[in-house]
Amino acid sequence: MPSVIVMPQDAPAAKLTATRGYQAGQPGSEVVLYDRYTEDREAIGRRLAQERGMTLVPPYDHPDVMAGQGTAALELVDQVRELDGGGLNDLLVCVGGGGLISGCAVAAMHLLPGIEVWGVEPEAGNDTQRSLAEGRIVHIDTPRTIADGAQTQHSGTLTFPVIQQLVRGIVTASDAQLVEAMRFFAERMKIVVEPTGCLGAAALLSNAAGLPDLRGRRVGVILSGGNVDVRRYAELLGG
Amino acid sequence: MPSVIVMPQDAPAAKLTATRGYQAGQPGSEVVLYDRYTEDREAIGRRLAQERGMTLVPPYDHPDVMAGQGTAALELVDQVRELDGGGLNDLLVCVGGGGLISGCAVAAMHLLPGIEVWGVEPEAGNDTQRSLAEGRIVHIDTPRTIADGAQTQHSGTLTFPVIQQLVRGIVTASDAQLVEAMRFFAERMKIVVEPTGCLGAAALLSNAAGLPDLRGRRVGVILSGGNVDVRRYAELLGG
Repeated sequence: MPSVIVMPQDAPAAKLTATRGYQAGQPGSEVVLYDRYTEDREAIGRRLAQERGMTLVPPYDHPDVMAGQGTAALELVDQVRELDGGGLNDLLVCVGGGGLISGCAVAAMHLLPGIEVWGVEPEAGNDTQRSLAEGRIVHIDTPRTIADGAQTQHSGTLTFPVIQQLVRGIVTASDAQLVEAMRFFAERMKIVVEPTGCLGAAALLSNAAGLPDLRGRRVGVILSGGNVDVRRYAELLGG
Repeated sequence: MPSVIVMPQDAPAAKLTATRGYQAGQPGSEVVLYDRYTEDREAIGRRLAQERGMTLVPPYDHPDVMAGQGTAALELVDQVRELDGGGLNDLLVCVGGGGLISGCAVAAMHLLPGIEVWGVEPEAGNDTQRSLAEGRIVHIDTPRTIADGAQTQHSGTLTFPVIQQLVRGIVTASDAQLVEAMRFFAERMKIVVEPTGCLGAAALLSNAAGLPDLRGRRVGVILSGGNVDVRRYAELLGG
């Protein structure tokens, strides 16, 4: 079906090219770019949906999106159970708008009631950590961080209550720690992970303030993506 | 058990560090470095084995090594069969001393008698291609190529007859084509593959001279490793 995708103009070129590739040959489809520091994505989406009579699919604040993203934890628990029957004690999940972590928390805690789910935000954009502390959704300016998938300004009205109820706490990782984690994945696991996707692992590897001592525990980490330009990736690895 | 590993002094630092890591705490274990352009690895290995009363494990010219490396094709065929029952028409395998391709050819052609197995060497070191043409094992100087795992000077006396009998042909890939393939794997498949490991894919993606038209066929490619220093990898991707 035709799709109009609203994307920050500084999104990774690989993401933009791949999105246009998926839309190719579909009349009425396009990518609309905006400036994430000065423009309001949600307003642009609402306006376009109304003007063109299209259905708005938000990136995180929707029950189906949360449930869909939660299948990451579903798959993780299924596979780990199969592997050695040991289950998981803790789960670390990156946090932008909260779709992934809210879905993952519901899935993981349903399957493994004793599991502790922790969220990880970029140090520069810890709006959800602050929101938990204040008991309300805190709005921040678009943070400056290499974790472009977590440059959100606030949690969702649907995701935040789930986080409040199920998530044990939110910790943060710095950009330097994200780069260290990217190097670790390249060198030891041979996989390309984008900065945002490294948030959980970076918090674990750097023993982030706020996390309990996880030594000896079985810790699951969600790696949420590899959308990073190859040249940018090379710069980050080599820098 | 104690192990002495003979390794080129310009091997990827990551490979050297990992090898020493596996040997840690094992008395009598060490890595012995040599110059691959001026010294004879096989002579060094033989001498050390004799002096220290150790068993010589060659990198490719041994039936067990060939059989072990052939399990790569065994796993590939098993997994592809499970995925969609279609099997494979062709298999592309990188060639250094011929251990991997001889084992893979035996395994793949036993399971899928109609499969055609092709070998891929670095353009700068096509000794096996020349050996097949001349009907005898050709020796060359250590080739200069980024595919450090395929900087071999000749096929083995055990591997070459298997290659002669089972492999359809040998084609080559240039260093520039290897870098293109590395970028492809990083960008589209999110995996880190070392230059040598990209030989098969590079030949396929560049439609190497000597290969038939593979369009529409089901082609398997063995990716044989990810031992590349992160900084070197970043240079190759970014260059």
